[in-house]
Amino acid sequence: MKKSLLALAALTAFAGVASAQSSVTLFGIIDLAARNVKNDGTAGSLKTLSTNGNASSRLGFRGIEDLGGGLRAGFWLEGDISGDVGGGQKTATTINGSTGNGMDWQRRSTVSLIGNFGEIRLGRDYTPTFNTVAAFDAWGYVGVATVANVRSVIASGATTAVRANNAISYFLPAMGGLYGQVQVAAGENATGNKYAGGRLGYAAGPVNVSASYGKTYKTNLMVDDLKQAEIGASFNAGFATFQGVFEKASYSTNSQKLFNGSVLVPLGSGTLKASYTKTSGSIAFAATQYGVGYVYDLSKRTSLYTQYGSVKNAGTNLTGASFTASSGGNAPIIRGGTSSGYEFGIRHNF
Amino acid sequence: MKKSLLALAALTAFAGVASAQSSVTLFGIIDLAARNVKNDGTAGSLKTLSTNGNASSRLGFRGIEDLGGGLRAGFWLEGDISGDVGGGQKTATTINGSTGNGMDWQRRSTVSLIGNFGEIRLGRDYTPTFNTVAAFDAWGYVGVATVANVRSVIASGATTAVRANNAISYFLPAMGGLYGQVQVAAGENATGNKYAGGRLGYAAGPVNVSASYGKTYKTNLMVDDLKQAEIGASFNAGFATFQGVFEKASYSTNSQKLFNGSVLVPLGSGTLKASYTKTSGSIAFAATQYGVGYVYDLSKRTSLYTQYGSVKNAGTNLTGASFTASSGGNAPIIRGGTSSGYEFGIRHNF
Amino acid sequence: MKKSLLALAALTAFAGVASAQSSVTLFGIIDLAARNVKNDGTAGSLKTLSTNGNASSRLGFRGIEDLGGGLRAGFWLEGDISGDVGGGQKTATTINGSTGNGMDWQRRSTVSLIGNFGEIRLGRDYTPTFNTVAAFDAWGYVGVATVANVRSVIASGATTAVRANNAISYFLPAMGGLYGQVQVAAGENATGNKYAGGRLGYAAGPVNVSASYGKTYKTNLMVDDLKQAEIGASFNAGFATFQGVFEKASYSTNSQKLFNGSVLVPLGSGTLKASYTKTSGSIAFAATQYGVGYVYDLSKRTSLYTQYGSVKNAGTNLTGASFTASSGGNAPIIRGGTSSGYEFGIRHNF
Repeated sequence: MKKSLLALAALTAFAGVASAQSSVTLFGIIDLAARNVKNDGTAGSLKTLSTNGNASSRLGFRGIEDLGGGLRAGFWLEGDISGDVGGGQKTATTINGSTGNGMDWQRRSTVSLIGNFGEIRLGRDYTPTFNTVAAFDAWGYVGVATVANVRSVIASGATTAVRANNAISYFLPAMGGLYGQVQVAAGENATGNKYAGGRLGYAAGPVNVSASYGKTYKTNLMVDDLKQAEIGASFNAGFATFQGVFEKASYSTNSQKLFNGSVLVPLGSGTLKASYTKTSGSIAFAATQYGVGYVYDLSKRTSLYTQYGSVKNAGTNLTGASFTASSGGNAPIIRGGTSSGYEFGIRHNF
Repeated sequence: MKKSLLALAALTAFAGVASAQSSVTLFGIIDLAARNVKNDGTAGSLKTLSTNGNASSRLGFRGIEDLGGGLRAGFWLEGDISGDVGGGQKTATTINGSTGNGMDWQRRSTVSLIGNFGEIRLGRDYTPTFNTVAAFDAWGYVGVATVANVRSVIASGATTAVRANNAISYFLPAMGGLYGQVQVAAGENATGNKYAGGRLGYAAGPVNVSASYGKTYKTNLMVDDLKQAEIGASFNAGFATFQGVFEKASYSTNSQKLFNGSVLVPLGSGTLKASYTKTSGSIAFAATQYGVGYVYDLSKRTSLYTQYGSVKNAGTNLTGASFTASSGGNAPIIRGGTSSGYEFGIRHNF
Repeated sequence: MKKSLLALAALTAFAGVASAQSSVTLFGIIDLAARNVKNDGTAGSLKTLSTNGNASSRLGFRGIEDLGGGLRAGFWLEGDISGDVGGGQKTATTINGSTGNGMDWQRRSTVSLIGNFGEIRLGRDYTPTFNTVAAFDAWGYVGVATVANVRSVIASGATTAVRANNAISYFLPAMGGLYGQVQVAAGENATGNKYAGGRLGYAAGPVNVSASYGKTYKTNLMVDDLKQAEIGASFNAGFATFQGVFEKASYSTNSQKLFNGSVLVPLGSGTLKASYTKTSGSIAFAATQYGVGYVYDLSKRTSLYTQYGSVKNAGTNLTGASFTASSGGNAPIIRGGTSSGYEFGIRHNF
């Protein structure tokens, strides 16, 4: 996801005066796939050209400045792209009109101060609780078999399932394999915006484990706090990597327990992937999902892929993208009954 | 329209690890003109600073990766700019508010796989049928004399007059002067989104000819298929280039035949252009238009221009931009009666 | 605000043909601060992570082309960023939805022709009248103590308080210390869009003085012309820089006189700043404001800052951003009563 470094000279263009050396990286991904989803009931099936089968399409700029004395400053701007329709956000409903959906930086917009003490980061960013879920997901939280299809994080109105606005985070510096993060986010009187959470992990050799806990405070229209806890682990056995993550979320009288296990097998110039996801708890949020896929790497930056996912819901509804949200949504699979989908796509990093 | 290549080094900024060599091109156009349009009837006249007199203002990023073995991967993100008001789309109605019009990539958002076999391209792109119309237009489909002023492609609700969402295209490889393209676009249950079309042409020495056919399938609110056919040709006689294009479009009981002929004469450090456009068919879509202009090239990237257009409508209405859509619209000339406009502008490619 | 020059090679990426040498600069700022505002009355207090404490967060592209013979062409695209929530505009109210607020270029979108004669600039840009106000403001027109909190420019519906759409400007060439600008902006039948103004100044050694006058013509819903006049001066005494600006604005029966004085003292690796702002005229627009702050420079590009502002309103209302507009608004301080705020932040230029 992070690629090309723009070689920047120590000059300003209009003013003509010299300034400090600098580097800014332009980076992004375009991922498009021919997708076919089939659903029980009246929802039927739909063929689409969909974005984000293997990774979220995006565009970003980031850079880092050496301040001397081991201190560095950095910035990161990254937003979604709806590659299938040319939208500047994750979902783009109005295409030929002009009423919205322009490019934003809601994937991440941060400024950081980095030193021996670690990193202090301000702005919109992933939550620690999401980071654990994502770290052990085989599908990058996108595509027909992603855990996003069945992960509810409860219908609480919280905006913190994946990222938090107005966040201040602290990251531990490199200390052996130990890593960790705490984050607080200002509510600013908006619904489900106020958050506090942390994550601690250890990665060394073939092993990676981490745990996290977070709370979204009741603000404005939320009637109760949303609490989340996660634990995840992966082990690289050489012939395959095994990984699993467990999440428990509760909000008022609702709850969901989620287990997502997967295996990644290097095979030829690519990777074979399979996953099993099981959720339980409040009836509306209980489902079982299987996924299998193969990613063929044309290079480090470009891959072809095919994948299949099937979900069976015990309940009648799961939060997430709906059937028709094929233009950039994570989840092509309808809620209720059995739904399945497959896709053939290409992912290109730049 | 394609200019500056960012020199990219083989480094990642944050991670510090080496990766494959890469190139990303930032490119764009800003085109602004002082425009004056005069209209019969109550519409009156209007002086504006308008965008897109000589070419569509735009911003884009594109890149290509050599995968080895003659295979390449490429991406292309390109969106409109309303240069007169700082909007991030073609039309920007809300300027100081915050309700929309942000930068998108609706001019083109594609990922490609290119080899000896040709090119497979996924995403939002021009249709083959539009490509023929545009290839033989003297005005780049913008400004006071553009064929866009009188091209209806019938009021069918189709979104495919210029580009198609969710498209998969195949382009022939270089084979002498032969070129060609087929495209299918998924409808995804949206109105006028489903499209299939193709184009075949031959360009060698002074000659360029091509023909295309396309169909937009009735989906959702469309009541019938929209059918289009085009044929165009140009001949460079040295002292001048002569070109013409004919398009026939039909939808339900409506139809339009359009002829657009033009001549481009190299003159000094620039080009003198003149055009004649005639449409017939259903009464509402019949019009006659004249245009004349001169483009003075300050460099390969920067030009000054002036141009004049006059349209006389047999009918009372033509689809397209209206009188007031001066902020980035193609067509400043009102429908019904006689309307004329002229403009002085500057186009700068970067 | 202007930093990194992309080193661009003389190549096109897809076409593979050589073109003229070129340079495009990517530049921007991310500024985020932990802010606490306290207000009299029911408005109460609010803790936020706010954007734009020391400078407006932004992203831009600009470039210049040497046309030979002393002539140059240039372009400039620059838009706001809501760094706290990842929005692509100054204010971003919808965060996880997709209804707007995408990146635009409303800070500046211009194309220029520059020569010995000066500069002709087309597009959206600062007005001459605003340029005088901004030139002598200690706070960069942002943050808890900015003059923007109490500057009304009268509630006239004019869109020209800071920038003008559809503008054509002429700038004097360098002539000793003399500088100046005239600007006209087309109204295009929109409310408060039509503007004409000019500015003349002299800067040499420790002295900088300038004066400006502008008029926004009654168009559409405006019932009268808005007239503005400004005069400002600064003197660098070495141990400190003293500056002040006076603005008089009138619209129909309303008027406002505004004085903004400030002192900037170099102190350690930074600058100590203090300001006093007093407005009078129509009762609704009368207020007194104090501000004090310190900016500590980690480098030429990166600074930490803290600042405090307090405003006491004689009237009950002032135009400007409201209490809740903490996401990128200039003004966290509520209108009516006494309000105060302080913040600790980081500003990073790239």
